[in-house]
Amino acid sequence: MTLSDHYNSVRKHTETICQTLKTEDFVPQPVNFVSPPKWHLAHTTWFFEQFILKEHLPDYKVFHDDFCFLFNSYYNTVGERVFRADRGNITRPGVDEVFEYRAYVDMHMQILLQLKSEELKELLELGLHHEQQHQELLLTDIKYILGNNPIFPVFNEDFDWENDTNSETGFIKIEEGIYEIGHDADAFSFDNEHGKHKVYLHEFEISKALVTNAEFLEFINAGGYQNFKYWLDEGWSWVTQNKIEAPLYWHNIEGDWFYYTNNGLQEINFEAVLTHVSFFEASAFAEWKKMRLPTEFEWEIASDKFNWGKRWEWTNSAYLPYPNFKKPEGAIGEYNGKFMVNQMVLRGSSCATSPNHSRKTYRNFFHADERWQYNGIRLVK
Amino acid sequence: MTLSDHYNSVRKHTETICQTLKTEDFVPQPVNFVSPPKWHLAHTTWFFEQFILKEHLPDYKVFHDDFCFLFNSYYNTVGERVFRADRGNITRPGVDEVFEYRAYVDMHMQILLQLKSEELKELLELGLHHEQQHQELLLTDIKYILGNNPIFPVFNEDFDWENDTNSETGFIKIEEGIYEIGHDADAFSFDNEHGKHKVYLHEFEISKALVTNAEFLEFINAGGYQNFKYWLDEGWSWVTQNKIEAPLYWHNIEGDWFYYTNNGLQEINFEAVLTHVSFFEASAFAEWKKMRLPTEFEWEIASDKFNWGKRWEWTNSAYLPYPNFKKPEGAIGEYNGKFMVNQMVLRGSSCATSPNHSRKTYRNFFHADERWQYNGIRLVK
Amino acid sequence: MTLSDHYNSVRKHTETICQTLKTEDFVPQPVNFVSPPKWHLAHTTWFFEQFILKEHLPDYKVFHDDFCFLFNSYYNTVGERVFRADRGNITRPGVDEVFEYRAYVDMHMQILLQLKSEELKELLELGLHHEQQHQELLLTDIKYILGNNPIFPVFNEDFDWENDTNSETGFIKIEEGIYEIGHDADAFSFDNEHGKHKVYLHEFEISKALVTNAEFLEFINAGGYQNFKYWLDEGWSWVTQNKIEAPLYWHNIEGDWFYYTNNGLQEINFEAVLTHVSFFEASAFAEWKKMRLPTEFEWEIASDKFNWGKRWEWTNSAYLPYPNFKKPEGAIGEYNGKFMVNQMVLRGSSCATSPNHSRKTYRNFFHADERWQYNGIRLVK
Amino acid sequence: MTLSDHYNSVRKHTETICQTLKTEDFVPQPVNFVSPPKWHLAHTTWFFEQFILKEHLPDYKVFHDDFCFLFNSYYNTVGERVFRADRGNITRPGVDEVFEYRAYVDMHMQILLQLKSEELKELLELGLHHEQQHQELLLTDIKYILGNNPIFPVFNEDFDWENDTNSETGFIKIEEGIYEIGHDADAFSFDNEHGKHKVYLHEFEISKALVTNAEFLEFINAGGYQNFKYWLDEGWSWVTQNKIEAPLYWHNIEGDWFYYTNNGLQEINFEAVLTHVSFFEASAFAEWKKMRLPTEFEWEIASDKFNWGKRWEWTNSAYLPYPNFKKPEGAIGEYNGKFMVNQMVLRGSSCATSPNHSRKTYRNFFHADERWQYNGIRLVK
Repeated sequence: MTLSDHYNSVRKHTETICQTLKTEDFVPQPVNFVSPPKWHLAHTTWFFEQFILKEHLPDYKVFHDDFCFLFNSYYNTVGERVFRADRGNITRPGVDEVFEYRAYVDMHMQILLQLKSEELKELLELGLHHEQQHQELLLTDIKYILGNNPIFPVFNEDFDWENDTNSETGFIKIEEGIYEIGHDADAFSFDNEHGKHKVYLHEFEISKALVTNAEFLEFINAGGYQNFKYWLDEGWSWVTQNKIEAPLYWHNIEGDWFYYTNNGLQEINFEAVLTHVSFFEASAFAEWKKMRLPTEFEWEIASDKFNWGKRWEWTNSAYLPYPNFKKPEGAIGEYNGKFMVNQMVLRGSSCATSPNHSRKTYRNFFHADERWQYNGIRLVK
Repeated sequence: MTLSDHYNSVRKHTETICQTLKTEDFVPQPVNFVSPPKWHLAHTTWFFEQFILKEHLPDYKVFHDDFCFLFNSYYNTVGERVFRADRGNITRPGVDEVFEYRAYVDMHMQILLQLKSEELKELLELGLHHEQQHQELLLTDIKYILGNNPIFPVFNEDFDWENDTNSETGFIKIEEGIYEIGHDADAFSFDNEHGKHKVYLHEFEISKALVTNAEFLEFINAGGYQNFKYWLDEGWSWVTQNKIEAPLYWHNIEGDWFYYTNNGLQEINFEAVLTHVSFFEASAFAEWKKMRLPTEFEWEIASDKFNWGKRWEWTNSAYLPYPNFKKPEGAIGEYNGKFMVNQMVLRGSSCATSPNHSRKTYRNFFHADERWQYNGIRLVK
Repeated sequence: MTLSDHYNSVRKHTETICQTLKTEDFVPQPVNFVSPPKWHLAHTTWFFEQFILKEHLPDYKVFHDDFCFLFNSYYNTVGERVFRADRGNITRPGVDEVFEYRAYVDMHMQILLQLKSEELKELLELGLHHEQQHQELLLTDIKYILGNNPIFPVFNEDFDWENDTNSETGFIKIEEGIYEIGHDADAFSFDNEHGKHKVYLHEFEISKALVTNAEFLEFINAGGYQNFKYWLDEGWSWVTQNKIEAPLYWHNIEGDWFYYTNNGLQEINFEAVLTHVSFFEASAFAEWKKMRLPTEFEWEIASDKFNWGKRWEWTNSAYLPYPNFKKPEGAIGEYNGKFMVNQMVLRGSSCATSPNHSRKTYRNFFHADERWQYNGIRLVK
Repeated sequence: MTLSDHYNSVRKHTETICQTLKTEDFVPQPVNFVSPPKWHLAHTTWFFEQFILKEHLPDYKVFHDDFCFLFNSYYNTVGERVFRADRGNITRPGVDEVFEYRAYVDMHMQILLQLKSEELKELLELGLHHEQQHQELLLTDIKYILGNNPIFPVFNEDFDWENDTNSETGFIKIEEGIYEIGHDADAFSFDNEHGKHKVYLHEFEISKALVTNAEFLEFINAGGYQNFKYWLDEGWSWVTQNKIEAPLYWHNIEGDWFYYTNNGLQEINFEAVLTHVSFFEASAFAEWKKMRLPTEFEWEIASDKFNWGKRWEWTNSAYLPYPNFKKPEGAIGEYNGKFMVNQMVLRGSSCATSPNHSRKTYRNFFHADERWQYNGIRLVK
């Protein structure tokens, strides 16, 4: 596949994700951590305009002077921007104008890729991987928007991910010793995976299966959400202050359990693998099971020996720099490094992760209370 | 005009107000006190469905079972409802479905009005006056939504209200004595105006003109927003905590004053009458002028002697029940009475008030810090 | 009594109120609206130092340079001051030093009063009435501090006010007509009572008795706190958000009702008159009784015909200026006028009001949710 | 030293720390993370009563039934307790009664230690180390209380710690390889240090000196607090939202730098080692210096080769369990494990750490924004 074809394919996939949406669905931002679908469409486009076209296409004229202000996400280097919490109030430009923006930038990208494809390969790949990250966020943000609507609309019946199941059982034992961690950067990877280095692991056994809805229901029925002793202190505060009693999207209706899925409100499939739990819940469940979560290093070393890819898997590792981590110069330096405090690492990938956007060294990260991604639990003993 | 024609005319006017909107503009709720235009369209329709059709049209089938939950505003009597702050997240039903809801209810209302027009006259009038109140809110809420967009879109060039000017000057003197206040209820009026009663007024002089932008600019330039001594204590907290430095929608751009209007961002017309000030600002301005605001009783008695109708006029009267105020039974009893604490009365009407929806006894009310209505200042000495 | 004796008597009374306190009790500020007893002792002293000694006693040297910063309450005119919420953190100066401050100022006041008693009469009276207002606040703030201690300490067994009862029953009828309201200012009174003026009252009947604990218990048992229909909208938010289920200091312990009194935790005396209710509760109770609260004008006119003085009585009047209200020049102008928004008037006086500090024209005022004063309910029908 | 003497010595040291306090200083809790000195005195006493006397001394009668409710800190296992934020409101029991409580428990502890000293050795040591941890908190909480008083009282002139200086300079190189981390538990240590295990370290160089006030001033003068690029994203939010411009207790008075010390407000000694910075500030300073903070493993391995003990040293390690970490059963299991999320490890000890309460394996931990401890910065390159 040429770079140009690859570009087209990734960009088209973003729009395919949105094809069942109504115009209204593109607008709202129900909570601070969710962005309007319209914003994702424009922001990923702005990324190409800002970091590639403006720098490398001679005489390129930006589509609209205000869009940098409107669609910059968190790059202080680039300048002022809309407050994150205000993204849902920006009704203009409309959805149609955002699609025009995409077409305009795509056309100019095609021109540019004819001119100097090889020289831009690295930046282009970053832009496409960035867009793929937003494809997953689009899927989880749309689920959040529709899933918080009291009439529970169907998003897309093709996205039947809540029914994913395990294909293996049992535990794998890994021997004590020195192992190599990290990406050696011959293919694309993010700066936070670089700096291949040695770690010393002690012996451990890791499950080949993810925790299922049935297993988690046992935790609920055993009073897991009501007993402080399974919880981290901040987790217990989170549970009590927010009155948490089940995973996100679970609803107990007159004694029966339902969950909101991409196909609307459904009875829970208890054979399926659990998803939409916070790190706090993952940690409490492990404690209740008298096991623990893997570290991100244990996970990376063991990952060749089990199937993964249906759920992002919470690890008990904080998101911190690898030895010799180097922050790139300029705005791209803000991509990863500045988030390395108070977040936990997730490994693997999920049903919502874009094709060709996963590898065993990939370090995803979220706050301990966040659970609107397709995350899950794998245990270690 | 028949009741049926009147109904059609009011209902159509609501839709006319929205005719320049894009679908996206119907969705957001940028702050708690603003509702999405889509919600206004549905809520006013629900009012007819809930209080008239369900009660009086035999075999009427509601348009959608969830709509009562979604579009009830504040009637506890009617049952549970969406949290006010969540109105902006309800992307479905879409705008098209809301217009279908309007058409469905309108059709059934026409059938019902053929059957028993006279008997429903009173309820119908309440529903239409209710819709007219929401027409004004639609106009001010849309202005708020678009006016908080950093690219300042044009709403409707026909709504050239920011250029309204005074037609009179000077002061009118009213003699001391006993006066009658309130509506005697032969024509339509709200319960909060009823209970015609006597008040004793002391002599006062009231301005025939409203305060202009030029006059308010003098207050700004005299440091009015920086000097505690003109402000009520809660007003001073409001100014300092919110860093208020000018009326809502005013922007100082490199030393020049602009304001957001229905026609986009414009240079301020200083001849025009001031609008979008809070009670706190009105009170501070009066203090600075060594005058005061009228009470609502003074205003009502003097109102035959000056022109009014361009701005809602802040009075120094708290919103409280008249002697012998009677709260109607049932849900309609929640219309007015329960708001009679911590709000200030505004009298008159504004450029955004619907035709035939004003009278000198009308009691409008808002919190002392609210300023997104077309309100203004008339002084007394 | 000479002015000097009067001064001594009032100042001594403040210290008598505190005589049963431990040093620790003088320090905390459990909520923003309560001030530490130590602060009251110093602030009232500062009032004499700032407004009398510094102005009128030649060569007066302030006791400590920082005390103006520490003990100014809300006089912007005087300059910067400690944030209100920080009053409880100021452990130094200690209680002993505050008493020294009092002695120092008292000594200089005595000297000054020898020199020019007559000329300072008005200012002195203001200072003493100000101190008396703080005496009542001392009593209610100390009750709040001790009453929120889980071990419920005894404050002072002599203050047996929770057992106050009614001495009369029945209703008084007042005829329609013009009445005179306000103080004509021959004796001491506050600026907010001045401006004697006429009001027109319609006929009403007012109760000679205050609402008792037994009557209020009926409201509780009838589900009054659970039924929105009795409540103002903001009152209902207050009840639900704060989970209010009874008056302040009431505790339901295994089905029996107790309240915290100045004599520790006691079984409720149901014959006694109710106290520690908010305006919201007073208003809801009246609604449930199908009666209403009096206006402050009705109260003032009827007050010669019933006994009052045990509880501050909530009226349904907002705290607003009388016609021709004049704000004094300078810092004293901040005493009353700037609070005239979003508060409700209470009339009468309470068990905690200082001797010679009540009159029928006195206008007390608090926010609608405040209930730590000794306030109560008198009904009108 | 006998166990009994050791007990007496530690307990007496706590009281010595408080000897210069006034009664009032024992009471307030200016922010949630600071506890009243009175509370520390009682809580450490309660620890012995709850976990030793009640379990092991036959017929022991608790000093006061309410004290378990009042002085339990965070042991859910033990039962209900006062909300943390309310500790400053509990004026009774008074300071004198708390000292009586200490004497009562000490007397019974002495009796018990005569009876079964050996069997209780482990629990006793935990209680004494617990008390020593609170001795350090007492010192930093008292500094916070007095340091936030606008008149800056002297705490204790003997605690001249702000003038501590470095005794060494230069960097030490540590070779790559496998190292052993953790305590092997022959002497007293906390559960979070246990589980001695291997880690693989890459080569690094670590400074022998701590960062000084002079060096940090350079960062300030270079605009370090105004430039986002040195800061973690959450650090930048912390700086901008709290308007942070210097370390805690630093005051810029008309262009000159002062700091609050245990000896009152002083000119800053720029030769002295920096203290009272957050992890965010430590991280930003390191970034500005183009260096980094050590991990806790690097610190532990290198610590034999430099002097430490004046400041707790921020590491770039999150507080997480060691391999094979075991949470003890019962209430003691809540001591450490439940805090293992969203906190950063500090290593070493400080001027305020109690004698015999430090070792190189000790893992202290605080949130990234906390800076009222005597913490500082050591750099790695």
